[in-house]
Amino acid sequence: MNVAQKLGFPENTKLLIVHADDAGLSHSENMATMQSLKKGIVNSYSIMAPCPWFYEMAVFARNNPQFDSGIHLTLTCEWENYKFGPVVPVAEVPSLVDENGHFFKKREQLEKNAVPCEIEKELEAQIEKLLKFGLTPSHIDSHMYSVASTPELFRIYRDLGVKYDLPVLINGQLMKMVGLNPELNIENGDFLVDNVFVGEYKYFENGKLADYYSSVLENLASGINLILIHPAFDNQEMKGITINHPNFGSEWRQIDFDFFIDQKKKFILEQNNVELITWKDIKRCIADGKDEYSN
Amino acid sequence: MNVAQKLGFPENTKLLIVHADDAGLSHSENMATMQSLKKGIVNSYSIMAPCPWFYEMAVFARNNPQFDSGIHLTLTCEWENYKFGPVVPVAEVPSLVDENGHFFKKREQLEKNAVPCEIEKELEAQIEKLLKFGLTPSHIDSHMYSVASTPELFRIYRDLGVKYDLPVLINGQLMKMVGLNPELNIENGDFLVDNVFVGEYKYFENGKLADYYSSVLENLASGINLILIHPAFDNQEMKGITINHPNFGSEWRQIDFDFFIDQKKKFILEQNNVELITWKDIKRCIADGKDEYSN
Repeated sequence: MNVAQKLGFPENTKLLIVHADDAGLSHSENMATMQSLKKGIVNSYSIMAPCPWFYEMAVFARNNPQFDSGIHLTLTCEWENYKFGPVVPVAEVPSLVDENGHFFKKREQLEKNAVPCEIEKELEAQIEKLLKFGLTPSHIDSHMYSVASTPELFRIYRDLGVKYDLPVLINGQLMKMVGLNPELNIENGDFLVDNVFVGEYKYFENGKLADYYSSVLENLASGINLILIHPAFDNQEMKGITINHPNFGSEWRQIDFDFFIDQKKKFILEQNNVELITWKDIKRCIADGKDEYSN
Repeated sequence: MNVAQKLGFPENTKLLIVHADDAGLSHSENMATMQSLKKGIVNSYSIMAPCPWFYEMAVFARNNPQFDSGIHLTLTCEWENYKFGPVVPVAEVPSLVDENGHFFKKREQLEKNAVPCEIEKELEAQIEKLLKFGLTPSHIDSHMYSVASTPELFRIYRDLGVKYDLPVLINGQLMKMVGLNPELNIENGDFLVDNVFVGEYKYFENGKLADYYSSVLENLASGINLILIHPAFDNQEMKGITINHPNFGSEWRQIDFDFFIDQKKKFILEQNNVELITWKDIKRCIADGKDEYSN
């Protein structure tokens, strides 16, 4: 039995998680994420433990356990004027930060500087921060998929899933995007998400981001599909955060919000026989038969 | 010679600093503060080192040394959903934080829990953070004037001024407001600001905050006057930060911005023979004749 069957669907069902990344980043991101979950077709999200608005989102998570709520492991801060750094004191993880104690902007800087044991310490502390807050995370994923910067980092990421008994997002396309060879780094026993969809700058630039999302919804394959979005409002706060960074910037995030809050998208899912599932469902299926989901 | 004379004015001149507190708190606060300095009659401000938007404001301070830029020593976080904590690792200053590692909301909690040596460590680290960033602070003051919570804390505050050779804001009215007896806690050698003006909730509540500010500008006494304001925009970010906290909330801060950015206020200052001075001016005067300014 595959995941679809375990969940009571036919074998070839198109399964979908619509996932909001970056919860906790800002008030704008939090409000848009909460609304997308309550009113839209977003049904899963993950929280950035090191971010300034973590608390607001964590309180929401504690009060709304009906929604999938994961840990968006964070090792980079890509913004120009808005900064955050490790959960662990900087002196204990000096290889993860710039001269001001903030995370590096780019994966390449992380890859060049970061000492694996410090990465492990920081990522574990991020998970522990959510647990200490009384949350029950549904899954682990990674901001900018920076956990796939090096094979060693990727092993740390996988091992955290084992240690905390949580599904981790592993997908070959994402690994390739970040520069890691899936053939060399996916292992027996890894649970794989079949297809991951993330908007690309070329779509945004040409005003085609919503069209891309429509096309994704209408052309899903059977198996486990995951759409990664970043809902937020194109307001002063988000403009300030994403200044000079139109890629995943505030306008992009407003498009994400507008598209996935739209009630008509529920009918598109119905028309296309798409079934929404969550990471909690996946965790249950994995627990139910570890061998079957081994890669 | 008094400060007025040292600065080249007649002895009985009405001197005024219009000071924006809370820089670094948020993007909204930063943008409004910068505009108030560039276009309004605000001529001094102080930065909160522990806050999420510190970096943006510190970059502004580094690039705009023409403006007075002080250190707004911070030991409390009064907001419901927006949290920040010490610059020093929490494990080193456990008495300053709640169960989530954030500053207490109220001065009373600080007074009850905080160990003086931890306060000293944290406040020094906040000053060092600005210095390490390459800033040249003009003065030291205190968020919610929480440094006047206890006599011991107040001594730490004064001593930091001596240690870093910076003027510190000391004023009897503010001390009383926080519950400290000025007669017992002001010492020989303290430099005093004669009159400090801060809006009160009763004015805000009755729609009279702008009237209060007008009245202050038109009725200043001679000597050193200081108006403490909190310019920010009443936008989604600030509404989120100040939720359920109308006292110094986002509407209040928008009024502050609107009033002090208004060009007509320059004429009111002229008509009333008010001279704007800065903390840098005061520092120069103090250095020029320490004995004369002793209390």
